[in-house]
Amino acid sequence: MNLIQADRILRAALSEDLGAGDVTTAMLPDPDTPVSGVFLCKGEGVLAGMKLALRCFSLLDPACTGEQLVAAGSAVHPGQELARVSGPASALLAAERVSLNILQRLSGIASAARRWSQLAAPLGIRIVETRKTTPGLRIFEKYAVAVGGAFQHRYGLDSAVMFKDNHFAISGLEPAALLRCARQRLGHSQRLIAEATDLHMALELALAGADFVLLDNFSPAQVREAVTALRGAAVYEARAALSIPAQEGLPPVPAGSIAPRVGIEISGGISEENLRDYLIEGVDVISSGALTHSVRALDISLEVTPQ
Amino acid sequence: MNLIQADRILRAALSEDLGAGDVTTAMLPDPDTPVSGVFLCKGEGVLAGMKLALRCFSLLDPACTGEQLVAAGSAVHPGQELARVSGPASALLAAERVSLNILQRLSGIASAARRWSQLAAPLGIRIVETRKTTPGLRIFEKYAVAVGGAFQHRYGLDSAVMFKDNHFAISGLEPAALLRCARQRLGHSQRLIAEATDLHMALELALAGADFVLLDNFSPAQVREAVTALRGAAVYEARAALSIPAQEGLPPVPAGSIAPRVGIEISGGISEENLRDYLIEGVDVISSGALTHSVRALDISLEVTPQ
Amino acid sequence: MNLIQADRILRAALSEDLGAGDVTTAMLPDPDTPVSGVFLCKGEGVLAGMKLALRCFSLLDPACTGEQLVAAGSAVHPGQELARVSGPASALLAAERVSLNILQRLSGIASAARRWSQLAAPLGIRIVETRKTTPGLRIFEKYAVAVGGAFQHRYGLDSAVMFKDNHFAISGLEPAALLRCARQRLGHSQRLIAEATDLHMALELALAGADFVLLDNFSPAQVREAVTALRGAAVYEARAALSIPAQEGLPPVPAGSIAPRVGIEISGGISEENLRDYLIEGVDVISSGALTHSVRALDISLEVTPQ
Amino acid sequence: MNLIQADRILRAALSEDLGAGDVTTAMLPDPDTPVSGVFLCKGEGVLAGMKLALRCFSLLDPACTGEQLVAAGSAVHPGQELARVSGPASALLAAERVSLNILQRLSGIASAARRWSQLAAPLGIRIVETRKTTPGLRIFEKYAVAVGGAFQHRYGLDSAVMFKDNHFAISGLEPAALLRCARQRLGHSQRLIAEATDLHMALELALAGADFVLLDNFSPAQVREAVTALRGAAVYEARAALSIPAQEGLPPVPAGSIAPRVGIEISGGISEENLRDYLIEGVDVISSGALTHSVRALDISLEVTPQ
Amino acid sequence: MNLIQADRILRAALSEDLGAGDVTTAMLPDPDTPVSGVFLCKGEGVLAGMKLALRCFSLLDPACTGEQLVAAGSAVHPGQELARVSGPASALLAAERVSLNILQRLSGIASAARRWSQLAAPLGIRIVETRKTTPGLRIFEKYAVAVGGAFQHRYGLDSAVMFKDNHFAISGLEPAALLRCARQRLGHSQRLIAEATDLHMALELALAGADFVLLDNFSPAQVREAVTALRGAAVYEARAALSIPAQEGLPPVPAGSIAPRVGIEISGGISEENLRDYLIEGVDVISSGALTHSVRALDISLEVTPQ
Amino acid sequence: MNLIQADRILRAALSEDLGAGDVTTAMLPDPDTPVSGVFLCKGEGVLAGMKLALRCFSLLDPACTGEQLVAAGSAVHPGQELARVSGPASALLAAERVSLNILQRLSGIASAARRWSQLAAPLGIRIVETRKTTPGLRIFEKYAVAVGGAFQHRYGLDSAVMFKDNHFAISGLEPAALLRCARQRLGHSQRLIAEATDLHMALELALAGADFVLLDNFSPAQVREAVTALRGAAVYEARAALSIPAQEGLPPVPAGSIAPRVGIEISGGISEENLRDYLIEGVDVISSGALTHSVRALDISLEVTPQ
Repeated sequence: MNLIQADRILRAALSEDLGAGDVTTAMLPDPDTPVSGVFLCKGEGVLAGMKLALRCFSLLDPACTGEQLVAAGSAVHPGQELARVSGPASALLAAERVSLNILQRLSGIASAARRWSQLAAPLGIRIVETRKTTPGLRIFEKYAVAVGGAFQHRYGLDSAVMFKDNHFAISGLEPAALLRCARQRLGHSQRLIAEATDLHMALELALAGADFVLLDNFSPAQVREAVTALRGAAVYEARAALSIPAQEGLPPVPAGSIAPRVGIEISGGISEENLRDYLIEGVDVISSGALTHSVRALDISLEVTPQ
Repeated sequence: MNLIQADRILRAALSEDLGAGDVTTAMLPDPDTPVSGVFLCKGEGVLAGMKLALRCFSLLDPACTGEQLVAAGSAVHPGQELARVSGPASALLAAERVSLNILQRLSGIASAARRWSQLAAPLGIRIVETRKTTPGLRIFEKYAVAVGGAFQHRYGLDSAVMFKDNHFAISGLEPAALLRCARQRLGHSQRLIAEATDLHMALELALAGADFVLLDNFSPAQVREAVTALRGAAVYEARAALSIPAQEGLPPVPAGSIAPRVGIEISGGISEENLRDYLIEGVDVISSGALTHSVRALDISLEVTPQ
Repeated sequence: MNLIQADRILRAALSEDLGAGDVTTAMLPDPDTPVSGVFLCKGEGVLAGMKLALRCFSLLDPACTGEQLVAAGSAVHPGQELARVSGPASALLAAERVSLNILQRLSGIASAARRWSQLAAPLGIRIVETRKTTPGLRIFEKYAVAVGGAFQHRYGLDSAVMFKDNHFAISGLEPAALLRCARQRLGHSQRLIAEATDLHMALELALAGADFVLLDNFSPAQVREAVTALRGAAVYEARAALSIPAQEGLPPVPAGSIAPRVGIEISGGISEENLRDYLIEGVDVISSGALTHSVRALDISLEVTPQ
Repeated sequence: MNLIQADRILRAALSEDLGAGDVTTAMLPDPDTPVSGVFLCKGEGVLAGMKLALRCFSLLDPACTGEQLVAAGSAVHPGQELARVSGPASALLAAERVSLNILQRLSGIASAARRWSQLAAPLGIRIVETRKTTPGLRIFEKYAVAVGGAFQHRYGLDSAVMFKDNHFAISGLEPAALLRCARQRLGHSQRLIAEATDLHMALELALAGADFVLLDNFSPAQVREAVTALRGAAVYEARAALSIPAQEGLPPVPAGSIAPRVGIEISGGISEENLRDYLIEGVDVISSGALTHSVRALDISLEVTPQ
Repeated sequence: MNLIQADRILRAALSEDLGAGDVTTAMLPDPDTPVSGVFLCKGEGVLAGMKLALRCFSLLDPACTGEQLVAAGSAVHPGQELARVSGPASALLAAERVSLNILQRLSGIASAARRWSQLAAPLGIRIVETRKTTPGLRIFEKYAVAVGGAFQHRYGLDSAVMFKDNHFAISGLEPAALLRCARQRLGHSQRLIAEATDLHMALELALAGADFVLLDNFSPAQVREAVTALRGAAVYEARAALSIPAQEGLPPVPAGSIAPRVGIEISGGISEENLRDYLIEGVDVISSGALTHSVRALDISLEVTPQ
Repeated sequence: MNLIQADRILRAALSEDLGAGDVTTAMLPDPDTPVSGVFLCKGEGVLAGMKLALRCFSLLDPACTGEQLVAAGSAVHPGQELARVSGPASALLAAERVSLNILQRLSGIASAARRWSQLAAPLGIRIVETRKTTPGLRIFEKYAVAVGGAFQHRYGLDSAVMFKDNHFAISGLEPAALLRCARQRLGHSQRLIAEATDLHMALELALAGADFVLLDNFSPAQVREAVTALRGAAVYEARAALSIPAQEGLPPVPAGSIAPRVGIEISGGISEENLRDYLIEGVDVISSGALTHSVRALDISLEVTPQ
């Protein structure tokens, strides 16, 4: 993880909660008395983000020390002790809420990612997240998804070329023509993904050289039909022969940029409830924004006692 | 709202998603072609955050203009047009995801706040949020709660003095003694809230001069019992007579800082499902972290077309 | 104190003074030679901010160590050694000015706060600061006021609802009506303060449920008259009976939000010279911007010698 | 381009040069007199960054207006007028140096990128930049490279998986084994690049499924030998058959992630002087840090006159 | 002024005061009702900072417009209207305090600078400020001093080489030797200033080539004696002949870096009360930290009314 | 150096390269395995910036330790070990590129500064840099120039008053008149430099009291002619007698602000190739932007091995 960025986010979060300072702890007879805290799990799930949670305390006061008792990615249970932290009361009480807010959210995300992935993995399908993350916390939330066992899609708008409905609507070009243009200029470390709204378009995109075709809001039956078509020998052969002549002034597309077998991603309308219906052989990837935009926090508390 | 801070958050969110730049839109034949977008509602809920959502576009490119069609706080329905935005394709497509991420989250929060509040209001009980907000987005999330019709608790650690279990555990003082000390030093624009874990403690805190007593994790039956006790004439009279002698070197507590009738807040284990069980006469305030820590985003899309 | 914010302010101050770097110390034969410094008091006053002053050195160079010899809030005298600091010459000489600028200002503020408070405390009146602080240094200046023994008013615009002349002038409502609206929406951890320009208005505000009435620019005689009126049994009884019916769609005002006895604050035209005239029985609070906006720095120097 | 980030960089650069303010312009009789400036080309090259150069003036003072006379990417010549800017003297003179510093550097980079690309394009080879950019200016420098007609490699450490000598040295695994592990976990929008130090290793990496093999510091003769080997039918077939069995608990590698024909990148020791020796058929990409780390600025001046 | 930096300071100040938002204005029936405000002078002094004060409003809400009625540097009087501002109530009320805090402080500083300068100017002596400014506000405070008619000393540690007692104490060299070393390495756009604690040292520094000698804490009699000595023909001739041989490996000191007549600055223990005693012929510059570290704000109010 | 600012630049550079995180190192079996790295010199030059290069590692991970083997300013040679660094693989590999980018650039600058200076020093001429530095890196690049043995010109627009062609063009005053005005208001720690485009103007500026005259784009023959004129006895005497009467309301120019012998700086069209032609006796300073705007990085690598 980019720790420079992580520290910046944690500092901002601590400062957001502190505002002008913790007026309650200041009322204690000795705000700097040494205390210890235990992170107690109060629900079933997967732990993620404890390093960040403990980092909150030492960022606020370097005198704080923490010890993680359970590894990231572990299944955790009510009553389980997850970590311990020690330091001045003023630091533990001031960082408590921010620390828990991060820990509970990330563990909630990891827990969902684990549940989805455990369903999909036996069928050889990857669960991936999307860019529907909390503004400002993407680096943490994508990490939590990975801890839970799901995979990463584009990190941001700079990570891959991905044409969606709005791009096609305003490009003024046929989808296949747009893809051909894009391949000419695609960097050799970039991939090309394109979203199809029906079977016809999916085939068109595959034949135009998309690395992955995203079937958006297809029903399970439509997905099956599309997989059959996209996995046909005709598509394979057409892609193997795909050769894009260079535009004037541009060198040809670098070798190795198209694989004969097109990748298939599905998305849209898939929830934890109906996920099983979409676990269809031949699908490579299922992406869902729900993993990060509709989180249920895992319940964890911090119990503080005098040392 | 603190617009200086709001702009800072939006800029950071846009930059987070853009990274090195939007490589997809750059592939369009004319990335700066003028386009229009419509925000379409795809679920049932309460709208919140559209001004912020539209602000994303003009922060990225001042040439973008937006028009909000539905007021904040309105109930919205699938198929309803919520706002329009116009500008260069490069700006609309680059700000789309961040704009929607914020809008969907805030509307999801406002929708939940509305549902909770509509149940509680007829019984004269306020729903309030907590500090269990998304790190870095508190200013937006507390705003969304208010749009939905719920009320605000402490903004942060600096907003009110609020003693919880961990403070009592490490103070080395009896709860009543701790409250008396705090009243001596309480600013005249601050309030004093204290959390009780049982009936005995609730009474003790009320008699020591807490403005509000928070009954934490009380069952409905326990809440009823506590309300009866706290609302009794004995408590009323004891509080009216409450007079805290000044400590040496400190002036007396300012007048008007204790009301005879103590406020009653309940919290802990209350969900949308069991909320009705806790709507008990005499309770003033129900606070719940679920309003902000376990959000279900409201589904809204942006449909972009050439102008 | 919010140490995240404090460090940010100190770093900015150090960088402001350093600019492109300390060109003088760079001319020394060995800029990194180990040296020691002693903070010497050169005036009479109250010490505040030494922790921050010492923090300047370690922020610039972690090799610096400091030792505070006199506690914050102590009365200090010319010739007294206040603290010692050791480290490389380059760090001590580069941070010296910023360190002293902060220390002298905060000690100057604490000294004034102490002088005012010592006059007022015997009469049971609190001295409080205002928002007339140096832009960017509020967190330090409010801290210094507290060190000097005075109390805190609103930290900022978010800390309490406080109606002043300009609010009344533009609200389009009678003051009492404006207060009633505000009470409906006031958070249960917020207080309501209102400024009166004459006796009639003061009574009106008290009867409308203000927690505190601020008598602005009242002469001592007018203050006495107002105190008599506001402390009368009629006001007490009217406030005890105060009950604001809920607006449609809003729950009633939470219990415990009005105390029968109204708080009395006075402000305007009060200086250290005429303070005694305003020490009037029944007044709770005297607020003055002069504590922070017209500071006389306490003279302190740093004497550096080779180790 | 990420304009949020671009503005931040320009503001920082302006503030760096201004420091406490422009003491020279302040000495003029009327520092705010309206003036005009013309950007004059004084060398041969390719223009890049004029939008950013003009943006400097309006960021400093919104009253400034600019007009670009020559499009980005155009070949420019001594004596050519490139753009005009108007506004208060204080703004034009204060932003002049920063504006020119950016413009000259970016045009210098674009000019070099153009020279390299014009040599390579006829042979169907792409020139790409590296991460050897000026700290803090990567977004600008990669943009200038693209304006000059060269292509983009990884933007940063997050853009693609790229194993180099140091990774192999410390992994404790055979290169092929390391690549197989990586493919298991590679995101479906990521590519896998690996650096080879000799022919044997290049083949090993190609057979292990690298999307691109980077031949590092190969002599032209060695490059020719490697191209022959990597383009052989045996490699093509082995890669087409490449199938990585899933690890326990992980879904299989997504389809479409390996193309039969491996990409070939060469790098190391290639300069503008010896570039022709490396323009070898079958090479896809030549990458060079010199495009950005050893720039010769294009000479451009700003001539200011009264309006 | 560096407007990039000025805006950053103003935004931070506004955000500091707003915190989570202005809870009072939010209680008004229509917080966005258009209103007008008048800045009213309530004391005698010199106006400084009104552009910055008005900028606060437009930074918070671009819909605000301001008009300055009195130029910076003008003498202002009680009752005088200084400026007008119009815009939404929410913006005027939220920016009011910060705007006034800056305006009152800067006008207070300019007023003092004017009073000091008017005493000194007839005797041909310049008043200059020091680095004893408020941390974070130096750019504003040095501007206010200039508006009041006083002059600028070093902006920061990077502006000139200035040896003070602590430098001499730890350098391990005789003062004259230290100065000679420094001249060797002094940039040709830098000046060399040195602080003397007695007459002997003053002469030594002048003969070693200081551009200015600062007489620190000299009594008026001692100043007179030093002026006589420093202005003697012997010093003049010795300095004219001053020639510093180059060190090995270093070029000689650039020509024109020493003027025969040494500059004389006095400082220490000079207040507005005793300034006249120090207005001694032959002194060039009197520097005083009191101009910025012990400010008395000029009383100015903002009266807001509905439009 | 301003270490607060240096750390800020390094953190930003690290974060720029890391983006969402180092996806390659994350693929290693044990990304946190302890490793060692050696900085190996691969060219001839002067070392500068190693402290900053090593600081990159410890900023990213405090567990990293570094040891510099060769002092800044040393001549270095191919094969020489320059420094060692140890720490977790994840930190060494993530900071490697940024560390090298800074080190190679600064050493490249120092190397050029050394080459230029070694030619000029024997003739008693100083080489100085300009403000033509990389935006955002001025503090580093000016440091590298000094390490190489060249000198510093103005740091930024606030460092000295320096009139150039554009100032004269728009001032509406004769150059000599503009200089006289400026001297009136010049701070006593500031210098006055003015640029001449021909011999006549050079003399005019010298007689008007410029501390330094910059001969811009003079041929070597023209420089010789100008030096003879400027060093004539007439100029010396005129300057010694120079006395600027005070303007109304302003005190006279401080003593010691003009030296009889004017400084001579030359600039424009001077390159490493033709530098010898400009090494003309009587010239004090040669300034060149090429030292920083057209850098050739020194080749240095980091070889990492398991510990």
